[in-house]
Amino acid sequence: METIKVIFDTDPGVDDAMALLFLHRAPQVEIVGVTTTFGNGRIDTTTWNALYLTERFGIDAPVASGPAAPLVGPAPPPTDFVHGANGLGDIPLPATLRRKADPRPAHRFIIDTVRAHPGEITIVAVGRMTNLALALREDPAIAGLVREIVIMGGAFGHNGFHGNVTPVAEANIHGDPLAADEVFGGIWRITVVGLDVTQRTQMTTDYLRALARDGGEAGRFIWDITRFYVAFHHAAGVADMFVHDSSAVAYLIDPSLFTTRRGSIRVVTDGIATGQTMLKPDEYNFPPGPWDDRPSHAVCIDVDTARLLSLYRDTITAA
Amino acid sequence: METIKVIFDTDPGVDDAMALLFLHRAPQVEIVGVTTTFGNGRIDTTTWNALYLTERFGIDAPVASGPAAPLVGPAPPPTDFVHGANGLGDIPLPATLRRKADPRPAHRFIIDTVRAHPGEITIVAVGRMTNLALALREDPAIAGLVREIVIMGGAFGHNGFHGNVTPVAEANIHGDPLAADEVFGGIWRITVVGLDVTQRTQMTTDYLRALARDGGEAGRFIWDITRFYVAFHHAAGVADMFVHDSSAVAYLIDPSLFTTRRGSIRVVTDGIATGQTMLKPDEYNFPPGPWDDRPSHAVCIDVDTARLLSLYRDTITAA
Repeated sequence: METIKVIFDTDPGVDDAMALLFLHRAPQVEIVGVTTTFGNGRIDTTTWNALYLTERFGIDAPVASGPAAPLVGPAPPPTDFVHGANGLGDIPLPATLRRKADPRPAHRFIIDTVRAHPGEITIVAVGRMTNLALALREDPAIAGLVREIVIMGGAFGHNGFHGNVTPVAEANIHGDPLAADEVFGGIWRITVVGLDVTQRTQMTTDYLRALARDGGEAGRFIWDITRFYVAFHHAAGVADMFVHDSSAVAYLIDPSLFTTRRGSIRVVTDGIATGQTMLKPDEYNFPPGPWDDRPSHAVCIDVDTARLLSLYRDTITAA
Repeated sequence: METIKVIFDTDPGVDDAMALLFLHRAPQVEIVGVTTTFGNGRIDTTTWNALYLTERFGIDAPVASGPAAPLVGPAPPPTDFVHGANGLGDIPLPATLRRKADPRPAHRFIIDTVRAHPGEITIVAVGRMTNLALALREDPAIAGLVREIVIMGGAFGHNGFHGNVTPVAEANIHGDPLAADEVFGGIWRITVVGLDVTQRTQMTTDYLRALARDGGEAGRFIWDITRFYVAFHHAAGVADMFVHDSSAVAYLIDPSLFTTRRGSIRVVTDGIATGQTMLKPDEYNFPPGPWDDRPSHAVCIDVDTARLLSLYRDTITAA
């Protein structure tokens, strides 16, 4: 089996932690670094959580912190009403950690790692796109050296969902829309799993309970951190729990779970639609406009939810 | 049968002409006025065409002209590559007309007519929303006196279509986005049939040929004006001909053809997403934002195309 070297760009975050454990347990994946973004918590919180998760689960990869705010303007408030004040569902956490963050800023860590393994690094990005944009600004040539980028972010309207932070904007893109627009303008291979597709897959309480029973320490941990997250879903009128970040990992492990279409992507960076991702499918023609001369990327439009849920469960519970 | 008094706000336009004949032949409908907008042609072209169509087909209703340009900025170029240089598929047209336009500007005609028949006037608006916005600005109280507004415009992403002028904007809304945003902010009853739904219904050449055979003068006229329009569709890779404006008329005559959802609507008025219509479904909650305190309208999300095509054919070909 070919090993996929992965940098996980993340803001843990309950579903980020679940996706990190998914990567860690996947036999195909070697986690070579974890880079952090603000988002589900402030940057100090998400970086601490990344250090904690890698220490607790023996994930032998550096953690490098991103900046505290987007390319332009202040950081939006953390979404602690979704993930808890500590970002991990308010479970008890230790007072101190042995691990320390890599001294490099996240974008520099990305550049160094990609240049050390040209053509081999896949980046799974499930937070704000700030680190990727900074890496691309500092060293544009890395675009040609990255194997693939898989993004959980945005929404493209399939299934009727266009956004969660606003009616047309998803949180990861809304949190740094300029960074996202620059990343989608990069000449690298990107696949996006948007909110409209991640929301199709939901984990029931029975599903999570089975993970807790059969998934060892990881399964019990997932049960603990999802109590707060599930309560948020219930308060929002959602029966079960959306599978956001782990959908990006699932695409990495088994792309055949997803149906995709290709096109160029722009992001609205100001005004009432700020943070919206807009796809121009390659097969449609329009008068000249701001999508021209942009690279074509893959956007997921459908998913086999039953197989995705089996893949996650089997990966977490494997002996 | 209750008679529905209709003002048809239009920029003929091939499919506008087809929708006008649909209204004219519908036994439930009394056309009480035709108001014109720039769009498929310049305002002098669309107004001349409205006068020509009403004269030729004996439609006894005043024609009142709207302005030549949107609320802000210059008029976009007419879409003559879709509708022909004369707006009616470049069929031969007479040099002179007996009919003359009403001396009032279109928005004044709308106000006067609504005030003369409070609660009775339905406006079917299939062009730029400029006249409706001007009427609302000049006399906001008419919002409560209009029976209903049915709009062909915008796109909401169902069926994967978000726009035709740009990847996210439909021509009627893109042509005067500020007017559309003001109209959707009005406290009147609006139903929107967007591009994503109108494009589901297509008329084949066989269908149009049957209209020509069985539909008398109207049917033969429809055949003649659609030659250019069909050729445009073919050049764009579309097998048959989309049924845009007549879908709004079909909603008026038989709303049961459509599935709708309700929500508040904003329109992007500048930047790369300009002209985009954005729905916040009533059942979803978001943090405070620019959709708050806007009225709820109905948006079509699906259509029974077979029944719509039957309704159009039966109406045109009825004895």
